[in-house]
Amino acid sequence: MADGMRREIDFLLYDWLRAETLTQSDVFSGQERGDWEAFLDLSGAISWNEFLPCYKIADHEEPFLQDGQVIVQKDLKQALQTYIEAGLHLATVDPENGGMGFPFAVASAAMAELMAANVAGSGFVMLSIANARMIADFGSPEQIAAFAEPQFQGAALGTMCLSEPDTGSSLGDVTTRATPDGEDSLGLRYRIRGRKMWISAGDQDVTGNVIHLVLGKVVQPDGSTVPGPKGTSLFVVPKILPENLGSTRNDVAVAGLNHKMGYRGTPNCLLNFGENDGAIGWRIGAEGDGLRIMFQMMNEARTNVGLGGAAVAYRGYMLARSYASERIQGRPVHDKQIEKPVPILCHPDVRRMLLVQKTISEGALALCLKSAMLCDLLRAHQDPVQKDRARSLLELLTPVIKSWPSEQGLVALHQAIQVHGGYGYTRDFDVEQLYRDSRLNPIHEGTTGIQAIDLLGRKILGDGGASFAVFLDEVRGTVARAGAFPDEAEKLSGLCDLFDGLVRDLLAQNAPADALSNAGAFLDGFGHMVLAWIWLDLAIAAQAATDAAMAEEKRWACRFFYAVEVPKIPGMLALLREQQSLTRDVPDHVLI
Amino acid sequence: MADGMRREIDFLLYDWLRAETLTQSDVFSGQERGDWEAFLDLSGAISWNEFLPCYKIADHEEPFLQDGQVIVQKDLKQALQTYIEAGLHLATVDPENGGMGFPFAVASAAMAELMAANVAGSGFVMLSIANARMIADFGSPEQIAAFAEPQFQGAALGTMCLSEPDTGSSLGDVTTRATPDGEDSLGLRYRIRGRKMWISAGDQDVTGNVIHLVLGKVVQPDGSTVPGPKGTSLFVVPKILPENLGSTRNDVAVAGLNHKMGYRGTPNCLLNFGENDGAIGWRIGAEGDGLRIMFQMMNEARTNVGLGGAAVAYRGYMLARSYASERIQGRPVHDKQIEKPVPILCHPDVRRMLLVQKTISEGALALCLKSAMLCDLLRAHQDPVQKDRARSLLELLTPVIKSWPSEQGLVALHQAIQVHGGYGYTRDFDVEQLYRDSRLNPIHEGTTGIQAIDLLGRKILGDGGASFAVFLDEVRGTVARAGAFPDEAEKLSGLCDLFDGLVRDLLAQNAPADALSNAGAFLDGFGHMVLAWIWLDLAIAAQAATDAAMAEEKRWACRFFYAVEVPKIPGMLALLREQQSLTRDVPDHVLI
Repeated sequence: MADGMRREIDFLLYDWLRAETLTQSDVFSGQERGDWEAFLDLSGAISWNEFLPCYKIADHEEPFLQDGQVIVQKDLKQALQTYIEAGLHLATVDPENGGMGFPFAVASAAMAELMAANVAGSGFVMLSIANARMIADFGSPEQIAAFAEPQFQGAALGTMCLSEPDTGSSLGDVTTRATPDGEDSLGLRYRIRGRKMWISAGDQDVTGNVIHLVLGKVVQPDGSTVPGPKGTSLFVVPKILPENLGSTRNDVAVAGLNHKMGYRGTPNCLLNFGENDGAIGWRIGAEGDGLRIMFQMMNEARTNVGLGGAAVAYRGYMLARSYASERIQGRPVHDKQIEKPVPILCHPDVRRMLLVQKTISEGALALCLKSAMLCDLLRAHQDPVQKDRARSLLELLTPVIKSWPSEQGLVALHQAIQVHGGYGYTRDFDVEQLYRDSRLNPIHEGTTGIQAIDLLGRKILGDGGASFAVFLDEVRGTVARAGAFPDEAEKLSGLCDLFDGLVRDLLAQNAPADALSNAGAFLDGFGHMVLAWIWLDLAIAAQAATDAAMAEEKRWACRFFYAVEVPKIPGMLALLREQQSLTRDVPDHVLI
Repeated sequence: MADGMRREIDFLLYDWLRAETLTQSDVFSGQERGDWEAFLDLSGAISWNEFLPCYKIADHEEPFLQDGQVIVQKDLKQALQTYIEAGLHLATVDPENGGMGFPFAVASAAMAELMAANVAGSGFVMLSIANARMIADFGSPEQIAAFAEPQFQGAALGTMCLSEPDTGSSLGDVTTRATPDGEDSLGLRYRIRGRKMWISAGDQDVTGNVIHLVLGKVVQPDGSTVPGPKGTSLFVVPKILPENLGSTRNDVAVAGLNHKMGYRGTPNCLLNFGENDGAIGWRIGAEGDGLRIMFQMMNEARTNVGLGGAAVAYRGYMLARSYASERIQGRPVHDKQIEKPVPILCHPDVRRMLLVQKTISEGALALCLKSAMLCDLLRAHQDPVQKDRARSLLELLTPVIKSWPSEQGLVALHQAIQVHGGYGYTRDFDVEQLYRDSRLNPIHEGTTGIQAIDLLGRKILGDGGASFAVFLDEVRGTVARAGAFPDEAEKLSGLCDLFDGLVRDLLAQNAPADALSNAGAFLDGFGHMVLAWIWLDLAIAAQAATDAAMAEEKRWACRFFYAVEVPKIPGMLALLREQQSLTRDVPDHVLI
């Protein structure tokens, strides 16, 4: 188990993504692969030795509220403190802030192991890293010192407070109000009043302080607020106020905890801001710019949801392949004459289920590390054309990175349970919990339906297909290098033509209602196409991999993906291509 | 809620299946629709008023072991006693045994409501009804009096004891041993020794006695047992011995309870038979005939698993459509200018998710009631040709009835959770539990992989395609009546040709290893074809339904199924049609 993911990670980072090339750029100069390996060693050891042992315990002993304070399961709390003390949360933080300044690709690889070992545990640090980065990028030096540095130093963890009980996917409608309350060294000060829902790690006893980033609306002189996304602003609201305000408790209360199907180790809070005098907060960024700048953190969180989906599916695959090797049962359908029962690995349908898991979990992990690498290239590239290209690709792929591992990770874990038979349905086996934990992924940080609209509406039709053209160009580059895989190259080339034609048609129709009504079908099919590209690209890279066995492994997995998954793509697109108005035309009374 | 399923049930029973025609046969003569309606009224009332209120409680307060006795959650225990006292378990029992002798179609409709309200609760009675029927069909009059009648009278519930810790899907390998122990008025007596795993309601305190049907192997004079399925025999083993043996405890002990993801209200036991002197049991049926006759109960249980999958998905759909009507959020993508947020029912993607649920849950319920009707027709038909036809269809469809609602029910419930957003992931909403409960269905009573081998190996290739030809003939009959649905008729006709060609090819290839290695792909595609047939047949029947609104509802649902699901079928079959040896060819070291 301890090195169960590292072999895969090394292949992806060094053979496929060629992450070492990053060290030639100014941004990562002075770093060496050896630095990253030491970090991955330490992070892996803490993941498997500290977080895995409390995976089940933290599911069973849910966080609870005691005198207004959330208490986290004690072993998980200890593991988190060990993680923070080791400084692992500083991997991508700028050296000027005391961080290591490592590439996202390397940090995401380490995060994947943490997520595979204990995804609920990873939630605390993942959000805090993104929160501190937001403050570092958009805050004043004083705000950084007061609210980001404590997170770097391990004295606080951060949250993201967007949703409200009546406002989930529709964030322009938030009703949290921020009344101007003067100005101090930390900037423009406000009194915040509102209720925030689904706040992961919204309170905890791992660190002394909690730094909330809260989306709200500034109250105008006439008492009104500006409707829609343009009325939103972002506020930093600490649980404990800064020293200049007496280090007292802010007016933020935990109103309750949600009890979830899985992901139970992370407390999920309903927070009341300003039940009394109003919670004190300071604005970050310009008024009306809240949702726009919050998308930096949102995109980071979305990418991490995808990474979690991939990592947890990967762990399920590790468990299933191990069980399939050990469990003795029946005779294979293609050789019923065998006298003694065989390991279930011998049954073709079990082999199929393992290949489903292999292609989903390895493919999703590759996709997520590629997105991290694009973040790094975006920073490393000097050439503005290359920079733009990386940005276009990253933005286009983000909804796929969020949703494909989330949805398909569940498909993989469904098969991980099937491989275990009845045992897999019991709480004695981790696959049961992995499945429950993962069911959150298609929901949080934007449901799959929201990702679909983002992909087709904003990312593809919204820029007239420009980003999509960059993507097609990348894919055709893979096709051009695929001499050793002529069948797959031909199929991928066919997919390029299929989607190129589809996007051109949708642009020409200029009927966004028809297109967006069926964005879900587009996301399904396009997600599979992206993975077809990833798989061919992996198979090509594996032919020259340091680990020679990778060539055969990736070749078979690629072949399976093209044999089983690629043929499903045309069917997925049927609604979009042929019955564009069906879901709108059906009368309400047929549905309810 | 109270009449949430009855409208659908009435349409299926009377307009679609024309169940009233059964009363013209000798088997059901003297019954009237009014009798059935009174039964459905009572059963529905008990389901929704007694079983639904303890749905969550029985999940939260799992059964536990106290002094060797399993204690069932008290409200669920009370609901079960109410159900039994009302005699609802006697619906299909022959009048000569004190039952109502109702058609399976009617009884299954009532069972569907019970399952929708509390599927874990339904498990107790479903197994007992099937157990008592086995004893009534295969036992001697003395065995019936001793072991079936107490179940009819509500003094006992029955179980099915097949799996062992090391023998799940491979029942020919059971190691439970039955040593001959003389003969008495109840027949040939044996001492049973072995461990049985996954025994639902294997012990409980709802009734005083538990009647186990145990699959084991008779110990031969030389101490050996006969290998394989032909070595198996069936034994009835009561928890409390009959009066002639002093009404004392038999040597059957609960060694432990499994703690499951869902379905928690039903205790799932590991039973030790014969830890001391050997449990006393009597053989039912001939020696060596155990697994063969057990298939009657197994098939009934498989059909009920499918029915449970359909019913629970149906309840999820009821909850999702209600939530979608009430929850206000965002503006539809096709009309962003609307000022105020709308019910989420207005969002095309939510409508799509509801249609997915509608087509799966209503289609699966229809399929299951059709199978029950085929059981009834098998008994009612006088003409041997018609009888054979009903038998062929029923046997062919059984693996689809077991697996399609099980797998697709989860797809529907996945969408039911998505419609609820974050709330659907919390234990405050029933969809969370419905999803966990349903995850069992693809596993128990034969995994989906086992159903696939049964379908393609035994039911289709095993009889040279004869049953399949009957099925095609039925489907083409629907096509011939589909004048009002020319597009769907053409597509269904195309599916007939596709599968006809595929089956002919597989028969001609005569390469069972290639075919059976990819039986899973065949089951996926064939299951969807069966539902395409069901949906067109439902749409046709609805045009003349008593409830005129059904015509429009079924027409839209049928159109959606053909627009979204039917196009997926060719892709599902790709592995079987093009890469038959792939899963066998891939080297083991690639998988593990």
